[in-house]
Amino acid sequence: MTDDRPLLPILGGRPVERSDAARNRVAILEAAQRLIARDGIDAVTMDAVAAEAGVGKGTVFRRFDSRQGLMAALLDHSESAWQAAILFGPPPLGPDADPMERLLAFGPSRLETTLANLDLIRHATGGPSGRSQPPYVFAVSHLRHLLEQLGVRGDLPLLATALMAPFEVHVLEQQTRRDGFTVERIKAGWIDLVRRIVRD
Amino acid sequence: MTDDRPLLPILGGRPVERSDAARNRVAILEAAQRLIARDGIDAVTMDAVAAEAGVGKGTVFRRFDSRQGLMAALLDHSESAWQAAILFGPPPLGPDADPMERLLAFGPSRLETTLANLDLIRHATGGPSGRSQPPYVFAVSHLRHLLEQLGVRGDLPLLATALMAPFEVHVLEQQTRRDGFTVERIKAGWIDLVRRIVRD
Repeated sequence: MTDDRPLLPILGGRPVERSDAARNRVAILEAAQRLIARDGIDAVTMDAVAAEAGVGKGTVFRRFDSRQGLMAALLDHSESAWQAAILFGPPPLGPDADPMERLLAFGPSRLETTLANLDLIRHATGGPSGRSQPPYVFAVSHLRHLLEQLGVRGDLPLLATALMAPFEVHVLEQQTRRDGFTVERIKAGWIDLVRRIVRD
Repeated sequence: MTDDRPLLPILGGRPVERSDAARNRVAILEAAQRLIARDGIDAVTMDAVAAEAGVGKGTVFRRFDSRQGLMAALLDHSESAWQAAILFGPPPLGPDADPMERLLAFGPSRLETTLANLDLIRHATGGPSGRSQPPYVFAVSHLRHLLEQLGVRGDLPLLATALMAPFEVHVLEQQTRRDGFTVERIKAGWIDLVRRIVRD
């Protein structure tokens, strides 16, 4: 997942696969997800994934190159689903809701997605690297669009950046794992931040 | 530079050194700073630093372990000076200014420090890792203190986090190196963000 890869179209980024290869790919990703859900991320070895998916270990390596590559593919899979929910999904995230409703739904949804993916982000990127993090550019561009629809004056890309701050991986790790902030507290703080930022 | 190291007292974190060792350390750090200023960060090899400081290469390795260790020490040196300016320095950053004056001075100062250290941060940490970044915990705690003095209601640590967003390394790299934002634009955007956040 490089920084220069266009984020849209989100679902067309992969080369066309033969259907049995595509089936294998999905089977392996789903096996890895089951393993993570059941035993945690450390249980996800290439061997364990191959066994769970019912394919050979060589197939897993051919498709994903390395454990880190598999983690990156899992992260990509999750983030693509999140982007699709924003672009094409039902209200309140999707385009049929009004801009304020979408904005208020954005934060909790981004928070939950990042929290669910924290371990994956670490394993996929070898660290909380900002560059390889979840779709930051997509998120900022979406927030900017909503702020514009809401008629907010000011430097919208910079205000959008401030709205993304609570979802930085290192911030969330600090707040949830060390400072003991609850998810509800972070959500409430984000709603308050939105309220402050959208007023002119 | 680990995450669990107490950030205060900022200037007492190093073990006591014999004075010749301390002189060597400072001479090496200053030599590295001169090399960076003159030839850029890629010119900083352990050999070049030893030659510039007039010490043996072995001394540089004994003091700093590796090029990455030397970069981390340089970053630490710069960040300690910045923290000292906030804690003990003259107005508008230091404690003799009123809280709003300090807050308005904080952003440009943090922006300039991070921009000056961007290459160093990459080389010191092997990436824009949030965990090893400039003193995030110190900065958030200082901002929280100023917001409290200003009588801002709301979840102050979370609001402080939003004020730090424009200074995330990956955000600054995106905005200054790819999107072409000027430093003046980022400063102005930050002042506007402050204005929005301190209103209740």
